[in-house]
Amino acid sequence: MASLSAWRERVAAELDAAVAFWERHSHDPQHGGFFSCLSRDGTVYDETKYVWLQGRQVWVYSRLYRKVPRFRRPEILEAARAGGEFLLRCARLEPGSPRAAFALSRDGRPARLQRTVFSEVFCALGLDELGRAAGEPRYRAAAREWTAAVARWAREAPQELGRPQLAGAPPHEALAVPMMVLGLAEQLRDGGGDDETLDELAAWGAQRLLAHLQRGDSVVLENVSPDGKELPGSMGRLLNPGHAIEAGWFLLRFAQRRGDEALAARAIAGFIEGPLRRGWDPEHGGLFAFLDADGHCPTQLEWSMKLWWPHAEAMVALLAAYAHDRRPERLEAFQRVADYTFDKFRDPEHGEWFGYLSREGNVALTIKGGPFKGCFHVARALHMCEEMLEELLREG
Amino acid sequence: MASLSAWRERVAAELDAAVAFWERHSHDPQHGGFFSCLSRDGTVYDETKYVWLQGRQVWVYSRLYRKVPRFRRPEILEAARAGGEFLLRCARLEPGSPRAAFALSRDGRPARLQRTVFSEVFCALGLDELGRAAGEPRYRAAAREWTAAVARWAREAPQELGRPQLAGAPPHEALAVPMMVLGLAEQLRDGGGDDETLDELAAWGAQRLLAHLQRGDSVVLENVSPDGKELPGSMGRLLNPGHAIEAGWFLLRFAQRRGDEALAARAIAGFIEGPLRRGWDPEHGGLFAFLDADGHCPTQLEWSMKLWWPHAEAMVALLAAYAHDRRPERLEAFQRVADYTFDKFRDPEHGEWFGYLSREGNVALTIKGGPFKGCFHVARALHMCEEMLEELLREG
Repeated sequence: MASLSAWRERVAAELDAAVAFWERHSHDPQHGGFFSCLSRDGTVYDETKYVWLQGRQVWVYSRLYRKVPRFRRPEILEAARAGGEFLLRCARLEPGSPRAAFALSRDGRPARLQRTVFSEVFCALGLDELGRAAGEPRYRAAAREWTAAVARWAREAPQELGRPQLAGAPPHEALAVPMMVLGLAEQLRDGGGDDETLDELAAWGAQRLLAHLQRGDSVVLENVSPDGKELPGSMGRLLNPGHAIEAGWFLLRFAQRRGDEALAARAIAGFIEGPLRRGWDPEHGGLFAFLDADGHCPTQLEWSMKLWWPHAEAMVALLAAYAHDRRPERLEAFQRVADYTFDKFRDPEHGEWFGYLSREGNVALTIKGGPFKGCFHVARALHMCEEMLEELLREG
Repeated sequence: MASLSAWRERVAAELDAAVAFWERHSHDPQHGGFFSCLSRDGTVYDETKYVWLQGRQVWVYSRLYRKVPRFRRPEILEAARAGGEFLLRCARLEPGSPRAAFALSRDGRPARLQRTVFSEVFCALGLDELGRAAGEPRYRAAAREWTAAVARWAREAPQELGRPQLAGAPPHEALAVPMMVLGLAEQLRDGGGDDETLDELAAWGAQRLLAHLQRGDSVVLENVSPDGKELPGSMGRLLNPGHAIEAGWFLLRFAQRRGDEALAARAIAGFIEGPLRRGWDPEHGGLFAFLDADGHCPTQLEWSMKLWWPHAEAMVALLAAYAHDRRPERLEAFQRVADYTFDKFRDPEHGEWFGYLSREGNVALTIKGGPFKGCFHVARALHMCEEMLEELLREG
């Protein structure tokens, strides 16, 4: 097994290569904001600006600037600020409305709307971190407003998002909603002492996440009823191992902050260990994109593809689990996932990872970025892994 | 090369096996309508009823009953009628409204709505054919109403479908819209003598289809502007070879009916020959699901997968082209596509085809039906190929 210190070196070098790729190719000096549709070598193949990916790149740049000395460069903060200003100027569908578009034209006019909360989630996430990095309260105030809107839509008024409630469709909650509510509340309260509203919001997210852990804690279902029951059919049986594992480290950190050892153990066993075991392809390695809890074939065409982000999230989750309970099998699992990931997803020639492999592990899409892949999962995971590895090495 | 008469035998036997599969596994005697979420062996893995697939199965059963002596069995007509009655009773979002749901619960309550015209298209298609098979005008009257609504949304009032017009999104027309308008108008006017409204509707569909043939007739673009110009970005460059080829035989039949030889030649060269050449995977065989006109990597995760329906449509299109111009290379191309298709998609054990193969041609999803695959493309293509092969053999 490569030593922790060898992994720290690999992870740090890979983070540098990933950030360099986005710095070199994604900035739009003319209109602000970031291109995300980048070919393997960084060529822009589409100028659409995706709001999730704007907010996420603002978050990455700001977080690295704030926390990692070698990224504390003025041009990183300036790029984050240009992205944040672009969002403040253009993301809203209408002036004064909290609804944010899903996609914008290059010059910032709304081009697509999703009937979900995620555009607003990532606006808030990015601006909160930018406010911390830049020391400017107005960014954090905007993040706070967007968070209030997200909380309202997620908890009380989903109908305001515009999706019709139809009599034959049982109401359902997607795992990503409480996951992102928890993640956002933790981002906003981070280091901020007591904040009853955010604490309560984080607790709501955590509690709703736990409702997705079903069948005697043996499986994390992607969709459950709002009162936490299993739903019929393919939707009810859908598993998304990457989401489960990502939610696992969100929950673990929440449990650690609250000193809730039972919850931490449940997060590790139910959300990280179980989904990793069930989601790992025994034949070709790598995590499946989707599975069915009863072993049926999923209807998602990409179910057996290997996507970059579940692997990035699993690296974070396994190191976080190891740091928590120090069981050697966590480190072995980290090693196995990280070996697969570095072997298959890296692009040593141009930096940043490929996003989409076939089941067999061959590159299926050569793009480095697109409508759903930008500067986020790779950089966040590598940064968090580097931080955790350093901490582990420091402790010896 | 297998002889035309050998192909007629193979195609007829395969049609029997496909229809038997759906007759055995998809009927719901309790609520009417058809299950489409069927595993490899026909097990129902989800009870949702998809409106496209209800209308399409009604069409297939009714057409086979009406045109093919060995399918002129009362139970086929009864099943078609049960499907048609289910649509009349349940497909509408509200009583009196022409808007049809995309998906229904098993007992027929609306479960999902799409902001497109296709649910209504397939309701109309199925009911018109059912009206012919059953000799009952009320089905055809309902089809006519739905067709009028489709024509209105496609041509004048797309905003009534509920998709917001956003300032940063250039208006675009998807190939499937004029293709289905043409197909529907031809279905309703079939053998019906002069009908100015339907003739004009078909001509509108054909003309708008031709606007997708761009760059000096060298490429069929999936999306163009409403005034027939190429659009920027990935959306503007998107190719869907299966759609182009399917539109090709729609256009060819339209041109034949009108005795328009120049249009027929353009349909064959531009919509069938070109997309087949460009869309065929030189490495593993089979038609790609999506491509980019400038050779970029598409962003659709399934772009390199081989889907059943483009291959079924290509078999129809190539035989129709051969029947039209008798050039031997059409028959060679038919043979090549049909060999690949019968080799890779058939399931000799349970009947009906697999729908989704990996780029390499391995079965990627073992399902026989799902939200977008029901009793339609396979049966329609095999029926049409059998009919054309018989005609060719008769002519000697």
